[in-house]
Amino acid sequence: MAFSPLIEQLIEALRCFPGVGAKTAQRMAFHILERDREKGLHLAETLKTAIKDVKHCSICRTFSEHDICQLCANPRRNEELLCIVETPADIIAIEQTGIYRGKYFVLMGHLSPLDGIGPEEIGMSQLRERIKEKNLKEIILATNHTVEGEATAHYIRELANPLNLKISRIAHGVPLGGELEYVDSFTLAEAISGRLNVE
Amino acid sequence: MAFSPLIEQLIEALRCFPGVGAKTAQRMAFHILERDREKGLHLAETLKTAIKDVKHCSICRTFSEHDICQLCANPRRNEELLCIVETPADIIAIEQTGIYRGKYFVLMGHLSPLDGIGPEEIGMSQLRERIKEKNLKEIILATNHTVEGEATAHYIRELANPLNLKISRIAHGVPLGGELEYVDSFTLAEAISGRLNVE
Repeated sequence: MAFSPLIEQLIEALRCFPGVGAKTAQRMAFHILERDREKGLHLAETLKTAIKDVKHCSICRTFSEHDICQLCANPRRNEELLCIVETPADIIAIEQTGIYRGKYFVLMGHLSPLDGIGPEEIGMSQLRERIKEKNLKEIILATNHTVEGEATAHYIRELANPLNLKISRIAHGVPLGGELEYVDSFTLAEAISGRLNVE
Repeated sequence: MAFSPLIEQLIEALRCFPGVGAKTAQRMAFHILERDREKGLHLAETLKTAIKDVKHCSICRTFSEHDICQLCANPRRNEELLCIVETPADIIAIEQTGIYRGKYFVLMGHLSPLDGIGPEEIGMSQLRERIKEKNLKEIILATNHTVEGEATAHYIRELANPLNLKISRIAHGVPLGGELEYVDSFTLAEAISGRLNVE
């Protein structure tokens, strides 16, 4: 025996979210139907509008319902710095630090030839034009510290090398509050080889 | 700085699901926008249809888009048994055992006076009529083994006592594959006091 067809369809449709399996989808469907039909309807509408209207910023490629996103349109951001990240969520993480006032470029992924994701898919031709802008002084590579993220950072470094630009990579090492004893050895190795002069 | 207003709204709307906080909602929104806009649209449509069309079965109160659900409409189910459960998901769990061929009644919750859920909210007047049906021989109380579930079972027992019905409660004890050493003491106490004669 199964649920009624409509509930089955809803449960199946809810599995489009990451990490949502059959049981979680069932729980979500019942929760909405039992307690929150109004919010469910609101979600359906919002989802539809967002999917229809949210495009990519034509300058930095992040998500935006306008042609140019709020950050790129902001004249008070420093034009000399360009931070290159993998996803829009990374922008949020960096903005929350409050320490960076430059611009961004979002790859919307990382190089992953096995998955068919090459330079074109992560906007390399657009980035090539972008880093030629005469105001630009430094690019900061803030891709993730994974195999793919490092490969992507390497690719971009090669791309920017011929230009007269400062190229930097965000620091990797022991996180704040981290105890040496519990830090994994790869991170610790990185922290040692990337040690800074403090005299 | 925040996301664009539309993405903010989507993230907020996704928090209607149980256990979904700000970070998970953000991940869900980005996943849909980055990779699965088509499935996202399908979800929006399905959600809307289900919320509009899924009502309660007029006999057993489970979710159904028809007036009478598949189970209640099935003439091959045993009319003499009525299993009383808290939620539609419980029906699925019991049906998966394949051992029960009777009918169901779904409370859609349990007694919880502090939350304003009294007998009327869990369909007691409907149940009162239902258990008077002349074919019925036994009611099986399958509410959860929690304080509220037990209180609800007790209430129904009082309701059914004046009628000439067999009233049973599903067994509680050590689960299959459970080792005595690791079973909590309340469950073990239940298993001992509810021991069965095996001579």
